Amino acid sequence: MFKMNENYLKLPGSYLFSMIGKKVNAYAEEHPDKKIIRLGIGDVTQPLAPVVIEALHKAVDEMGHAETFHGYAPDLGYEFLRKAIVEKDYQARGCEIALDEVFISDGAKSDSGNIGDIFALENKIAVCDPVYPVYVDTNAMSGRTGEYLEDLQRWSNVVYMPCTAKTNFAPELPSEEPDLIYLCFPNNPTGSTITKKELQKWVDYANKIGAVIIYDAAYEAYITEEDVPHSIYECEGATSCAIEIRSFSKNAGFTGTRLGFTIVPKALKCGETSLHSLWARRQGTKFNGAPYIIQRAGEAVYSEEGQKQTKEQINYYMKNAKVICEGLMEAGYTVSGGVNAPYIWLKTPDKMTSWEFFDYLLEQANVVGTPGSGFGPSGEGYFRLTAFGSYENTLEAIERIKRL
Amino acid sequence: MFKMNENYLKLPGSYLFSMIGKKVNAYAEEHPDKKIIRLGIGDVTQPLAPVVIEALHKAVDEMGHAETFHGYAPDLGYEFLRKAIVEKDYQARGCEIALDEVFISDGAKSDSGNIGDIFALENKIAVCDPVYPVYVDTNAMSGRTGEYLEDLQRWSNVVYMPCTAKTNFAPELPSEEPDLIYLCFPNNPTGSTITKKELQKWVDYANKIGAVIIYDAAYEAYITEEDVPHSIYECEGATSCAIEIRSFSKNAGFTGTRLGFTIVPKALKCGETSLHSLWARRQGTKFNGAPYIIQRAGEAVYSEEGQKQTKEQINYYMKNAKVICEGLMEAGYTVSGGVNAPYIWLKTPDKMTSWEFFDYLLEQANVVGTPGSGFGPSGEGYFRLTAFGSYENTLEAIERIKRL
Repeated sequence: MFKMNENYLKLPGSYLFSMIGKKVNAYAEEHPDKKIIRLGIGDVTQPLAPVVIEALHKAVDEMGHAETFHGYAPDLGYEFLRKAIVEKDYQARGCEIALDEVFISDGAKSDSGNIGDIFALENKIAVCDPVYPVYVDTNAMSGRTGEYLEDLQRWSNVVYMPCTAKTNFAPELPSEEPDLIYLCFPNNPTGSTITKKELQKWVDYANKIGAVIIYDAAYEAYITEEDVPHSIYECEGATSCAIEIRSFSKNAGFTGTRLGFTIVPKALKCGETSLHSLWARRQGTKFNGAPYIIQRAGEAVYSEEGQKQTKEQINYYMKNAKVICEGLMEAGYTVSGGVNAPYIWLKTPDKMTSWEFFDYLLEQANVVGTPGSGFGPSGEGYFRLTAFGSYENTLEAIERIKRL
Repeated sequence: MFKMNENYLKLPGSYLFSMIGKKVNAYAEEHPDKKIIRLGIGDVTQPLAPVVIEALHKAVDEMGHAETFHGYAPDLGYEFLRKAIVEKDYQARGCEIALDEVFISDGAKSDSGNIGDIFALENKIAVCDPVYPVYVDTNAMSGRTGEYLEDLQRWSNVVYMPCTAKTNFAPELPSEEPDLIYLCFPNNPTGSTITKKELQKWVDYANKIGAVIIYDAAYEAYITEEDVPHSIYECEGATSCAIEIRSFSKNAGFTGTRLGFTIVPKALKCGETSLHSLWARRQGTKFNGAPYIIQRAGEAVYSEEGQKQTKEQINYYMKNAKVICEGLMEAGYTVSGGVNAPYIWLKTPDKMTSWEFFDYLLEQANVVGTPGSGFGPSGEGYFRLTAFGSYENTLEAIERIKRL
């Protein structure tokens, strides 16, 4: 008689964004006349850049002729894309990453979920609190997080690193030593960042205690301040302790196009074994690469035109971030984020819980955001808005909130 | 101090096709003058069908405009594609599969590797021997297969179901009861099939002992004989014991385009819990969908034109299969497969081992095939050739083999 993975039954509720989706759909069905503005899920709204569209058409044409047709992609991804990544994302910032340390994938969500495969189940994870739910949920699914303590809204075997107003929403080195440390900067959901000097402390700490940092840099393109690192490999010694996960979703609008990559440096070892060889085996066995035409689209992002056009998209969203931040402050809200990140983290007014404020905003302003408590217990009393809407909708949403 | 997943270290050698790739590349580098014909890995060579190319271009254009842009896809995949699948692959064959029992993915390899996530680690798997390596390797990675016994080329905790000439390369019900049974028909690597009546026995067996059948139907489009089922759901009672995995790679040439789907019927339960809810959670948390433009390409496969054009591709490959089968028989080889499948399974001559014959064929005829032993111990002394080459190359390869 077969047995299911019982760890799944321990997961509280459904995945945060599915839950939001259901609530919004129910409201929309009941109020078909209302114009709902969605600043909840971090989904982009601007179309793909012209140079990306052009690359896609060209690659599609190639797939239509036997001489230029592409079947299975190379295990790590096409070299043309890995080369662009190594040059533009790493060498340009003084980071020495080799071509075969880049693993092209279908996105940062898959990679940050699947990376757990190469670690033993007995590793203890540390996460920021609040945090992108995928890190914790995927570890819970594999049985690494102990029991879910409903009253505390915490797992029994996870090291939580509170990121509160007191620490400017940055984590502090934990008192209990973890084995795997998930960090995400610029941060989702709080929009906070840390300086290179601060990140260096984490790298030194991980190297000292023998922990691995899983560094999610999906939002690096939104960094505007000088001393904020774009890659963890800007820090000394990071190649012996850090895996970096990147995405094309937010820097080039690929949420529905699906492309990302993960860097596993060969210097990152467990005894004699390089984690690089384990991830290569994992991806070679359980994944068959991102589509050729999508990898060509990714390459176009790195072209001169691509960099210019995607930068314009980012500026567009950052203009929204400014509208949200300034508007909310005018309306008396306490806000952070929005400077090096497309996320604005606001304190709910009148001691409302995060979900109370969600309902309030949905019903009174027809604006959808994300309840902070969905990202962890320290997110309670906070709320995330994203800058990924259209400029017009963002303006209108903020006007509506101001009028409340 | 972090610990890696030690199960990875138990895996023998590297993934079969990576190993072949390395051998072939080494040979090609040493002999740049030789024209190597690859009939090894099951990769297609015919370009995407015109109607698919057209759908891709149209979808790419949509992604270039804000009004028609698509961000994150719905969790299960777009309804337009799931609808086509339900109607054409299932309802048309009298199978009752609901729209929300279809999970669109980036391919059958990912799904057959990831499906293990939703089962407890203590389940015992049964696999055909020989078998597509992904089923065993992914279970080995998660620690489900015990120890690898080098001398026996077997895992200590796997039920092997020998598929030999004696049984016409079909498995027999195992004497030891497994929890998860992997079946693939038409079979990779042997090209064998079983009738609907025979498959019904497996369904009845699984329902009786409380096992789950993971049914890989990636090659169903190659079926030419009437009594061979295209889906396991053609069998009575299959929805309470079977998960079916399908691919666009072989029926529409999507190996480099990446699209597949998995059916998890809601009737398939462990106690009160539907496995459907577990897989929905797994995919919702660790995957972000196949690209919109690729899902539109998949939809085009189901159009009237699409069905006609992809059928032509299949006929093209099956003509190759005939060339291989007949040519090898003329040359005195013992062959099977190639009638309902694009794979030809041949007995190596002169008691050569599979890898000896691989080297022999590579060096003497510059033809690449796949050693049968790479698929399991009962594959020793056998060799797989695929019909996925071009017609010209296939003809030439067989002429070369005949001349040996």
